[in-house]
Amino acid sequence: MTKGKATNIVWHPGAVTRADREQLNGHRGCTVWLTGLSGSGKSTIAVALEKDLCARGVRSYILDGDNIRHGLNKNLGFSPADRTENIRRIGEVAKLFTDAGLVALTAFISPYRADRDQVRAIMQAGDFIEVFVDCPVETCEERDVKGLYKKARAGEIPEFTGISAPYEAPARPELVLDTQAQSVDQSVAALVDYLDAQGYLGRS
Amino acid sequence: MTKGKATNIVWHPGAVTRADREQLNGHRGCTVWLTGLSGSGKSTIAVALEKDLCARGVRSYILDGDNIRHGLNKNLGFSPADRTENIRRIGEVAKLFTDAGLVALTAFISPYRADRDQVRAIMQAGDFIEVFVDCPVETCEERDVKGLYKKARAGEIPEFTGISAPYEAPARPELVLDTQAQSVDQSVAALVDYLDAQGYLGRS
Repeated sequence: MTKGKATNIVWHPGAVTRADREQLNGHRGCTVWLTGLSGSGKSTIAVALEKDLCARGVRSYILDGDNIRHGLNKNLGFSPADRTENIRRIGEVAKLFTDAGLVALTAFISPYRADRDQVRAIMQAGDFIEVFVDCPVETCEERDVKGLYKKARAGEIPEFTGISAPYEAPARPELVLDTQAQSVDQSVAALVDYLDAQGYLGRS
Repeated sequence: MTKGKATNIVWHPGAVTRADREQLNGHRGCTVWLTGLSGSGKSTIAVALEKDLCARGVRSYILDGDNIRHGLNKNLGFSPADRTENIRRIGEVAKLFTDAGLVALTAFISPYRADRDQVRAIMQAGDFIEVFVDCPVETCEERDVKGLYKKARAGEIPEFTGISAPYEAPARPELVLDTQAQSVDQSVAALVDYLDAQGYLGRS
């Protein structure tokens, strides 16, 4: 550790690096960015994936509406500018978690390609894994787990993605999960296979 | 794992909890909030503490100007409202890191008591450890590591904490580090002793 000249100030040469953190954890940090319609299965997959990763000793953390919209982003609404700022902040936090050596799992509709591309742009190459949780809007509406489609059809929610606002599917996602055709377990298995094959899960 | 009725939706009963994450890590999550004047030693202590914790297998992550002001909070200036929002967002991110099971180390002047108390208020009891990095402004100005005091005296930086803007010392901090009297190593040792005695560092 390098001591400063006349004071008791020590400067950064001794700093812990991301590589140190990843070595301690035994796996890489990254961001798994789940995008898709409301009801497509993003949160469900995130929760199941987190459980699977935890059982493997891989540290992950879910960023979702529950812990973001009521906390960091509670001063944001649903205007176009606020939606963009919402995704921007989530991207910055996911970047911090990635740098901290964790697998950040984000579960937000994030309907706009430009917003997602902006998150990708602030990350290091390979840190951003865009996962399209693909499900026809008809199926999402049938499920309507939160009753939001019903409200949207009744005109109670303006600009509801897939009904009265656009969803821009990823052009080149790292992974596509067809949640109409496959079960949650199958989606999680596909995700774990991808992460493992790409070397994110480290020693095994 | 509980399967939903007619769909392939799995809901939250299987979710990984903070306790699960802490068990995996072998230590608790918390936020060590360093507050004090520019040049008092906050960043230096954070960097040295992170190194010490990493060597003990304790996962921590520093939030500081480098990774916050250029990222999450790059759209904030230095008006009173922006300063409050700056600290609010940092507090929310520290809360997420704490929930993720990490020891979040924050190194910001955070001069206003109300802003710090607001961060304490959103945290669970025991999660927020306020550390007053106490050093006379004269000593900080002598060190002037970043040359900021010189600029402040020349009138180039308006509302500089300790010179032309107030610093409100914590009323009841969990810990006080006198960085005029003690070395960085002594400050880090005091912090580790505190964290260990309070059970944050887990199995040892």
